[in-house]
Amino acid sequence: MRNLRFTISYDGTAYSGYQIQPKADTVQYRLEQAVRMLTGESVKVISSGRTDAGVHAKAQVINFTTSSKIPVERWCLALNARLPRDIVAHTAEEVPPSFHSRKAAKRKTYCYTIRSARFPDVFHRNFEYHHPTHLNVEAMREALPCLLGEHDFTSFCTVRTDKEDKVRTLYEVRMETETDEMMSTAKVARIRLIVTGNGFLYNMVRIIVGTLIQIGEGKRTSSDMLRILEARDRAEAGPTAEAMGLTLWRVEY
Amino acid sequence: MRNLRFTISYDGTAYSGYQIQPKADTVQYRLEQAVRMLTGESVKVISSGRTDAGVHAKAQVINFTTSSKIPVERWCLALNARLPRDIVAHTAEEVPPSFHSRKAAKRKTYCYTIRSARFPDVFHRNFEYHHPTHLNVEAMREALPCLLGEHDFTSFCTVRTDKEDKVRTLYEVRMETETDEMMSTAKVARIRLIVTGNGFLYNMVRIIVGTLIQIGEGKRTSSDMLRILEARDRAEAGPTAEAMGLTLWRVEY
Repeated sequence: MRNLRFTISYDGTAYSGYQIQPKADTVQYRLEQAVRMLTGESVKVISSGRTDAGVHAKAQVINFTTSSKIPVERWCLALNARLPRDIVAHTAEEVPPSFHSRKAAKRKTYCYTIRSARFPDVFHRNFEYHHPTHLNVEAMREALPCLLGEHDFTSFCTVRTDKEDKVRTLYEVRMETETDEMMSTAKVARIRLIVTGNGFLYNMVRIIVGTLIQIGEGKRTSSDMLRILEARDRAEAGPTAEAMGLTLWRVEY
Repeated sequence: MRNLRFTISYDGTAYSGYQIQPKADTVQYRLEQAVRMLTGESVKVISSGRTDAGVHAKAQVINFTTSSKIPVERWCLALNARLPRDIVAHTAEEVPPSFHSRKAAKRKTYCYTIRSARFPDVFHRNFEYHHPTHLNVEAMREALPCLLGEHDFTSFCTVRTDKEDKVRTLYEVRMETETDEMMSTAKVARIRLIVTGNGFLYNMVRIIVGTLIQIGEGKRTSSDMLRILEARDRAEAGPTAEAMGLTLWRVEY
């Protein structure tokens, strides 16, 4: 048996998330179906972590074991021919039998994109959250540094989670902005929040973004972020931002 | 009656082109339907030009006359609420009765995007043509300067066109390249051809791109472009590149 590791990307729009569930179309289901078509085997595809319904991945990492003798350099093309167009395998490599894409993950990076303009951008409409009114980007940026480092992120975790330990470490939290070349103005038209950490609680990035948007709207101040973090109470934070804006950007091992 | 001019963008994937035709879903049909829903009027929406099935627009210009008294600043929001998600109006203004978005157009810019990598990019899959094998970017670039200026572009025009005069002027023809950040290599992963001219013949950009791709593949040399141009014979040029990679970028008046 060989253990194969892949980098894959997917447009999560059409899927009920990564993980297999009854009567739902999921990324994991499509991957396992593609392996079955290719090798006849029923494998369990392990990923670095689930992504929710509507969440995308630019470079998700998966692995599974196979007895197939197909050379590793042929796997991506063979899988892509059996996958729908919204899931693409980019790299494949053989790894030691002990490699487990979830357990071995050291750092993950997520990107949340907000289209901050009166109207949506048709070319990105499934990959960013459209916020039609003004956002105070500076106030949003000032709220970020307090999130860096090791903290109990209970305030930014959906209550129905089963994870006991709510302590995570964020290594980087930054915001990038883009102007809208088409509208020929210098106004910010796109905001990206890029967050790298050793792990993320359920809905953590989306609740941080939901809180940040309220700061951008002037409903809260930048200094509220620290107060919310320290409260360790989900009720103190803002709403969970829509899934469509979130993309798993990178997983490091 | 007021004459209103709009900048609109659309994802052409789902449409049989811009122009209304029987039993087909077109961008013009959707625009006229949206105006009908809003004002009750049956208007004829004029555009700067048709785009073919599968071709996109980042900033198409349209105009129509209406007796509606809706203030101009409310039109985009009102239309967008009645348009499908893949067509978006961005700007609206009242223009003199004589303004005609096709007849008054002075310069148009098209962009053709090639994904030059082993596998497609899921996030751009409907907006770029995927070419999986190596393209010689330098050879492609060297083929471009001969196209600048005023020429008879018969070689780059679909034969079934009804336009008699095949002389057009190109003001700018340039190629931009992007590397693939995800794959962390310095290899070119995306090629954009940006062409500005006083007008374009039927399929002109796509035939230029089809010829350029053959040059990039080494099937033709850079100097073939001038020979093909001078031949004034469609049979000398390469195939018509796929529609999905083409976007109407800008119209100038």
